[in-house]
Amino acid sequence: MKAVYFDGEKMILDKNYLEPNSGETLVRVNLAGICGTDLEIIQGYMEYDGILGHEFVGTVEKSDNSKLIGKRVVGEINAGCDKCDYCEKGMERHCPDRTVLGILKRNGAFAEFLSLPEKNLHVIPDSISDEQAVFVEPLAAAFEIEEQVPLQPQWGVAVVGDGRLAQLIIQVLKLKCSNITCFGRHKTKLQSLVNGGTKIKVGIDSSDEQSFDLVVDATGSNSGFTDAMKLIKPRGTVVLKSTVASKEHLNLAPAIINEITLVGSRCGLFKPAIDALATGIVSVDFMVDSVFSLESFSDAIEHAKKPDTLKVFLKP
Amino acid sequence: MKAVYFDGEKMILDKNYLEPNSGETLVRVNLAGICGTDLEIIQGYMEYDGILGHEFVGTVEKSDNSKLIGKRVVGEINAGCDKCDYCEKGMERHCPDRTVLGILKRNGAFAEFLSLPEKNLHVIPDSISDEQAVFVEPLAAAFEIEEQVPLQPQWGVAVVGDGRLAQLIIQVLKLKCSNITCFGRHKTKLQSLVNGGTKIKVGIDSSDEQSFDLVVDATGSNSGFTDAMKLIKPRGTVVLKSTVASKEHLNLAPAIINEITLVGSRCGLFKPAIDALATGIVSVDFMVDSVFSLESFSDAIEHAKKPDTLKVFLKP
Repeated sequence: MKAVYFDGEKMILDKNYLEPNSGETLVRVNLAGICGTDLEIIQGYMEYDGILGHEFVGTVEKSDNSKLIGKRVVGEINAGCDKCDYCEKGMERHCPDRTVLGILKRNGAFAEFLSLPEKNLHVIPDSISDEQAVFVEPLAAAFEIEEQVPLQPQWGVAVVGDGRLAQLIIQVLKLKCSNITCFGRHKTKLQSLVNGGTKIKVGIDSSDEQSFDLVVDATGSNSGFTDAMKLIKPRGTVVLKSTVASKEHLNLAPAIINEITLVGSRCGLFKPAIDALATGIVSVDFMVDSVFSLESFSDAIEHAKKPDTLKVFLKP
Repeated sequence: MKAVYFDGEKMILDKNYLEPNSGETLVRVNLAGICGTDLEIIQGYMEYDGILGHEFVGTVEKSDNSKLIGKRVVGEINAGCDKCDYCEKGMERHCPDRTVLGILKRNGAFAEFLSLPEKNLHVIPDSISDEQAVFVEPLAAAFEIEEQVPLQPQWGVAVVGDGRLAQLIIQVLKLKCSNITCFGRHKTKLQSLVNGGTKIKVGIDSSDEQSFDLVVDATGSNSGFTDAMKLIKPRGTVVLKSTVASKEHLNLAPAIINEITLVGSRCGLFKPAIDALATGIVSVDFMVDSVFSLESFSDAIEHAKKPDTLKVFLKP
């Protein structure tokens, strides 16, 4: 099959990559999305090598569950051991022996086929398009915040960052909190937020400091943590969505003096994300940027790296 | 009056320091405690200069409230502006314009007299000795954890550190959680914990990693944060009690990947601490080390710095 894999140094298109043969459910990939994490992996984050891609929609080709065959599906990306306490609680996302689609010890979605355990798959209703369905995975990561933090409607909320994930997070937080300010950098990206009723700011001024009850760092950059710590009120909560933000010299003293709660947040469950797309309470159509063939993966990645680009897709 | 002050570089005994004359309640200091924070301030932390000391018990000399005169009191160390949202909610601890006894813009307790707003003072029942009363302030900081984190009895809890604050924290957590392990370094200090039913370990081995639901860093050292991150389970909570731990190169990526919640924790309210000492559910007598005169402050500080020393007092 055709597949784009990362050999630890560079991305390579292989037209004769071995098809998955794991006994898991086999899915033909209809469309895959390029995510910030993919761009980080190409920089060496996670020390992953293999087929990249963890945002996808596909059609089931082979499965022990015959009812699934021919169905259009998306898939939870963490596959657990099915034995540990985490797996028993439905938290395969934290199984110490997990594999993660296109991220950790498991080939991903930038290929004609992928395989996943049957229980990871969710059938997608016809009302959700392929492009929309690819957003289920990042949208689930946005809904994860709601699972971890008891959101209060009266809170003043700041989202630092204006990228793809930030825009999904803002929409999800809007369902509970009306007073949201986005601190961004890119005018094109910010325009869609203004239309959605979110206040936007480029740069933090002194009146913003220590004035938000909840701050989400969704920058994917080193400055995000520092900015979030400037914005948060004493006793407030900062949600950390950027693993990149963690690699520089950080000063946690203000978090202790001001009794800040920092919440690390990663993948979420798919169901609330699918429901939100099916009912239309979250909109992703304005985030569709462009579709590239698998053969044009290199152009696609270069395009995805540009600051004003929204979601870029690969079509096998 | 006699007072020991820090001039930004060194500690100085002044026998003719001006008595407080603020119009606040005037307290004659019976006994003051030396805390890890005092030792940090002497190293330059907080950029404070003035009279040190924030743990004390004293007798009211002058007050607008005549009922207080002659009463034995301890005092909340944060004094707010009485106007902001935090002060209105009883959270003077987070008032942006606060002063803090012996720490921030307010002379402390290593002196014959100190002053505080009347509302900061709590009368101490006769059943609590002077030595015990000095522990109210650090014990309140231990109870603060309970106010911030909903403790679950079935949790496995680790406390990193075996110093004065760690020992108070362990006793407070024991009131809700029976399964507590202390990771320490100093055998003398650890002995008292064994007697209290706490498991003790010197050094972390692989079976300890990612195995605790709650970890409290009470080391006051750089290694505490790193050790806490090793011990905490995915989705667990780490309470940060050490401002020192924040100054080195920290990697927050594991906190995001494992969705750890980090809770900065500082001062607490005094009432639960006073009640705990009055009813005897927390014991501090074994932590009394030695009493020095104010004139011997230099010896007292050197003694307090030694790793196996428990609480050292200054008596004006």
